[in-house]
Amino acid sequence: MNLENIEKLARLIRYYILVSSTTAGSGHPTSSLSAADLLTVLMFGNHYNFDFKNPDNPANDRLIFSKGHATPLYYSLYLAAGQISSQEILTVRKFDSPLEGHPTPRFKFTEAATGSLGQGLSVGVGMALAIKNRFKNYDLRFKNEKEPSVFVLLGDGEMAEGSVWEAANLASYYKLNNLTAIVDVNRLGQSQETSLGWDVKSYNDRFAAFGWKTITINGHKFEEIEEAYKTIYDLRFKNYESKVDGKPIAIIAKTIKGKGVSFLENKDGWHGKPLGKEDLEKALKELGEVDLEIRGEINKPINKLSNYPISNNKSIIQKLNYKLGEEVATRKAYGNALKRLGGGYPNIVSLDGDVKNSTYSEIFKESFPDRFFEMFIAEQNMVGVGVGMARLGFIPFVSSFACFLTRGFDQIRMASIGEANVKFCGSHAGVSIGEDGPSQMGLEDISMFRSIHGSAVLYPSDAVSTEKLIEEMINHKGISYIRTTRPGMRVIYDNAQEFKIGGSKVHRLKNPRPKADQPMAEKSKLVIIAAGITLFEAFKAQEELSKEGIEAIVVDCYSIKPIDEKTLKELAKETSNFITVEDHWSEGGLGDAVLNVFADDSRVKIHKLAVYKKPRSGKASELMAYEEIDAEAIVKKAKELNV
Amino acid sequence: MNLENIEKLARLIRYYILVSSTTAGSGHPTSSLSAADLLTVLMFGNHYNFDFKNPDNPANDRLIFSKGHATPLYYSLYLAAGQISSQEILTVRKFDSPLEGHPTPRFKFTEAATGSLGQGLSVGVGMALAIKNRFKNYDLRFKNEKEPSVFVLLGDGEMAEGSVWEAANLASYYKLNNLTAIVDVNRLGQSQETSLGWDVKSYNDRFAAFGWKTITINGHKFEEIEEAYKTIYDLRFKNYESKVDGKPIAIIAKTIKGKGVSFLENKDGWHGKPLGKEDLEKALKELGEVDLEIRGEINKPINKLSNYPISNNKSIIQKLNYKLGEEVATRKAYGNALKRLGGGYPNIVSLDGDVKNSTYSEIFKESFPDRFFEMFIAEQNMVGVGVGMARLGFIPFVSSFACFLTRGFDQIRMASIGEANVKFCGSHAGVSIGEDGPSQMGLEDISMFRSIHGSAVLYPSDAVSTEKLIEEMINHKGISYIRTTRPGMRVIYDNAQEFKIGGSKVHRLKNPRPKADQPMAEKSKLVIIAAGITLFEAFKAQEELSKEGIEAIVVDCYSIKPIDEKTLKELAKETSNFITVEDHWSEGGLGDAVLNVFADDSRVKIHKLAVYKKPRSGKASELMAYEEIDAEAIVKKAKELNV
Repeated sequence: MNLENIEKLARLIRYYILVSSTTAGSGHPTSSLSAADLLTVLMFGNHYNFDFKNPDNPANDRLIFSKGHATPLYYSLYLAAGQISSQEILTVRKFDSPLEGHPTPRFKFTEAATGSLGQGLSVGVGMALAIKNRFKNYDLRFKNEKEPSVFVLLGDGEMAEGSVWEAANLASYYKLNNLTAIVDVNRLGQSQETSLGWDVKSYNDRFAAFGWKTITINGHKFEEIEEAYKTIYDLRFKNYESKVDGKPIAIIAKTIKGKGVSFLENKDGWHGKPLGKEDLEKALKELGEVDLEIRGEINKPINKLSNYPISNNKSIIQKLNYKLGEEVATRKAYGNALKRLGGGYPNIVSLDGDVKNSTYSEIFKESFPDRFFEMFIAEQNMVGVGVGMARLGFIPFVSSFACFLTRGFDQIRMASIGEANVKFCGSHAGVSIGEDGPSQMGLEDISMFRSIHGSAVLYPSDAVSTEKLIEEMINHKGISYIRTTRPGMRVIYDNAQEFKIGGSKVHRLKNPRPKADQPMAEKSKLVIIAAGITLFEAFKAQEELSKEGIEAIVVDCYSIKPIDEKTLKELAKETSNFITVEDHWSEGGLGDAVLNVFADDSRVKIHKLAVYKKPRSGKASELMAYEEIDAEAIVKKAKELNV
Repeated sequence: MNLENIEKLARLIRYYILVSSTTAGSGHPTSSLSAADLLTVLMFGNHYNFDFKNPDNPANDRLIFSKGHATPLYYSLYLAAGQISSQEILTVRKFDSPLEGHPTPRFKFTEAATGSLGQGLSVGVGMALAIKNRFKNYDLRFKNEKEPSVFVLLGDGEMAEGSVWEAANLASYYKLNNLTAIVDVNRLGQSQETSLGWDVKSYNDRFAAFGWKTITINGHKFEEIEEAYKTIYDLRFKNYESKVDGKPIAIIAKTIKGKGVSFLENKDGWHGKPLGKEDLEKALKELGEVDLEIRGEINKPINKLSNYPISNNKSIIQKLNYKLGEEVATRKAYGNALKRLGGGYPNIVSLDGDVKNSTYSEIFKESFPDRFFEMFIAEQNMVGVGVGMARLGFIPFVSSFACFLTRGFDQIRMASIGEANVKFCGSHAGVSIGEDGPSQMGLEDISMFRSIHGSAVLYPSDAVSTEKLIEEMINHKGISYIRTTRPGMRVIYDNAQEFKIGGSKVHRLKNPRPKADQPMAEKSKLVIIAAGITLFEAFKAQEELSKEGIEAIVVDCYSIKPIDEKTLKELAKETSNFITVEDHWSEGGLGDAVLNVFADDSRVKIHKLAVYKKPRSGKASELMAYEEIDAEAIVKKAKELNV
């Protein structure tokens, strides 16, 4: 490390932290100042290798600002690396600038969108896992190549987030010694001192208890910082018999919020406040002479890795072989699909939260044990790990009970901001899970995933459509969600049928009105829109109603988002009577998706059957009757409409 | 402890664990068997006092099964206590039985609905905090009374959930020495061994690092179990100079899943499986002779506490004193309201996640410091603490940024199942927060809270309506949510106006068509439904449109759930042109709530303006224009309708 160089760069970085946030009129300079020295040494002391011409270079080290509000520092570092110009940095937070208030993919070097705290370490775990998985065939000791490292900057306030400890537990379980957490312990949260203040010993003890190697330093002494990174390097690459082989490493740095400006240092009330014009002048005076031209070098990684991501080979994928009428739970079809597609799509990985025997992700695990990652009962972290693995070219399928995915809603929200390519599967949808009761019933999952920007939300009814849609999900970019059901349901589609995101299937009876001699009710046609388990109730109702001279057209609305507007609007030409029926709360699900199709189209009357009453333990059939989403309820509603 | 008695009771409890789950045909006997001895000694060794005739007795000890799937044990314990009959326990999981698959309030002794793992310790923290707060004026040492204790049974699998560590951190921060965690370390999760297996040392080290006192025992040796509870008692009540005064306590018990039945003990593949008829016979044979008549005694607590909950005194509440036209952010009005109402409603408490200077809960803190509880950056736990405090008669107002409440979605879901009386406030709603960017924007919060069963969802536009609605929330039973905005907005309502959950306000211009000589467009009337910040955009649009001969009726739809159906349907008699406009995603918000009003009413055409495009950093006005939810967009849409 060239100390003089580092000092100059640190000063330049502090300059732009202050100037850029004052120019923007908002931002978090004091949170940035406390971590400035830690990151300056990391990036410009040759501990971090990155190929700026190729951010996707698999050999790149990775840096995540879990402490996402420290964007003044984040962008200043890239300026110091010559990647952002001195004009550009003054555009932060402006509408047209890619340099947003918290990191987003509009800035090309952002690994993951952050800003909701406590999430970055999970993403780091995902990247570290991905790296270990990709590199496992490389014997690095003999090729003089360095396995990429993942560095995550965390604030101390966010150490209170449980998701950090989920990540910490998993990191040590998977021996992710290529993961380094840098904890900026500046004592002050947003509105007051953190729960531990400067008690670095407690952070040390906690990380150690969670199986990490820890190094405690003064976060503003360059030599100590340098020594820490050097120690980590040596532990990983110089001494394979090291006692700490296989442990992730936490640098716990005691720092000062606002470091570098005396009237900011360790002062309450400055969180998220930029300096006004006068204060900025004072502060810059204190900084002293800043070499505005100096830039630091970041070397390209020295190893060349090819075959990343691995190419697909769809020709080896087996065709479906289900028999019409056989009973297969769609959750089972999920597992079957991952297994069947796993060879042809070699970048698929499966992450599950200790329910693999319920979601059937275990079927994939049996065939591809290296590509299945048990995440244990920690759904928040599981989502973040998916984001990290997706960033490095994997296609993660993240599974749990539908209701437990609500645990990761904030992480899924952030994944969407980050445009992460993560697929979700929620099993045990609806009251139809039966006796386990409401805590295990997914009743808000369609609503949750519909509210994720850019998502696809799928709810197939049988094994064939499930498997077909999973392949569609693989080829869909962005977040998609598939909802699976616990009980077995009969296969109703031929193996050759196609299913598209945004599609639906219309089911008309061959002979809709068998008793031709019966008087026909006026307006005796209706559309029943269902998905998943209620599709079969709709079929039963369709049969029943046809005996009474009422023609029900049943729609398998397996793509809830995007919904098949075209088909539904065509059907509205035949009848204005629509019934939607779903095993989900009334709010936010299939019914609401259909309402939106006809929002400004007043031809159609839509009657929603859904779960309105608080459910309970009981048999699936009892519960569906109680919630009035079974065939009997559909028939009753259809007759009420005076169809 | 009468050892012989305890052994007999444990055998009785094991008997019913097995018989009840086999009878139900589903359930978790092996998970129940591992914790049976721990809980038998707790409840029948006189370590747990409860007044079964008065579950709300403030002097009761509290017991939470964070490990909610261990209901076979849960109900068997209450049978052993004489509170459930031997016939009743055979009804578990049946539709008409209050004994559900996971604990719900239909069973009268349930403190909190559990079943989604990792949440019970937070509820325990809330109860322990509530007890400390209520008891702080009692000098217990001299009245020979025992401060109530809170016991939380946890499984080891759920120790991977970050929420447990959020709770652990807060418990030691608040010195909750009346809180005991009993960790049933049986090694086996649902689908495989947990990440730590039987490594009780690691659990010990982790709890110790988080500031807890720990006791490690063999979970099946009655004497060790007894000794642990006795130690806890002595630490709390016999030695006030104890070195561990002020620390919560964790009993880490090494146990065997399926303990008591040889072919179940420590075996994979038995999670969540009841025994079949033959296996049950074998198992009961192993249990040996069971005294089916024996019952255990649980003593009533020895202290009498009155004044709980504390009575309201509405007469001292000050009237509102805002000036029409003054600019007040509704988030500020939130703080003002809590302060103004805090005296008259003495059971209100405020919980905040280190954003009290942003949500303005700090205003309440300044006036009522004893009733404000900093929760730090740990939203999951914050929700659970609210649930615990509500159970003991407090009225918690839980606040953070709207987007960060998504972190607690699963906890809010479980709170709803438990019918918890918790109020939520989400600030910084919408794109109108501006430059901080999407990670800080609440865009799915209305959707999330609408999908919570039984919730009320409120979005007032000005300070007066905000304060009025907060008082409505206090008197509303169950979960309610209020959405507040970052920028200041002018006061538009008189201090005397009333606002009800389920209400709305209709705003008509005095002279809707000022230029009477202008030709009137056919169908020149429309309704604009807005809330919060878009209400002011709607007013601007209303003015603008009136100049062009278009009469817009603006509705302040401050109650999104329940929505004012009556008023909206009345307005549909005047015109079929409706525009909804909201600073929220299109899915699940105000627009969808309005769509539902007219689902089966085809008179009305509804045009939704909402956030459709991915937002970014920028000025609030730029973003609202970009997302087409400002006055200009409303006017443009109104004209398109050929109104």
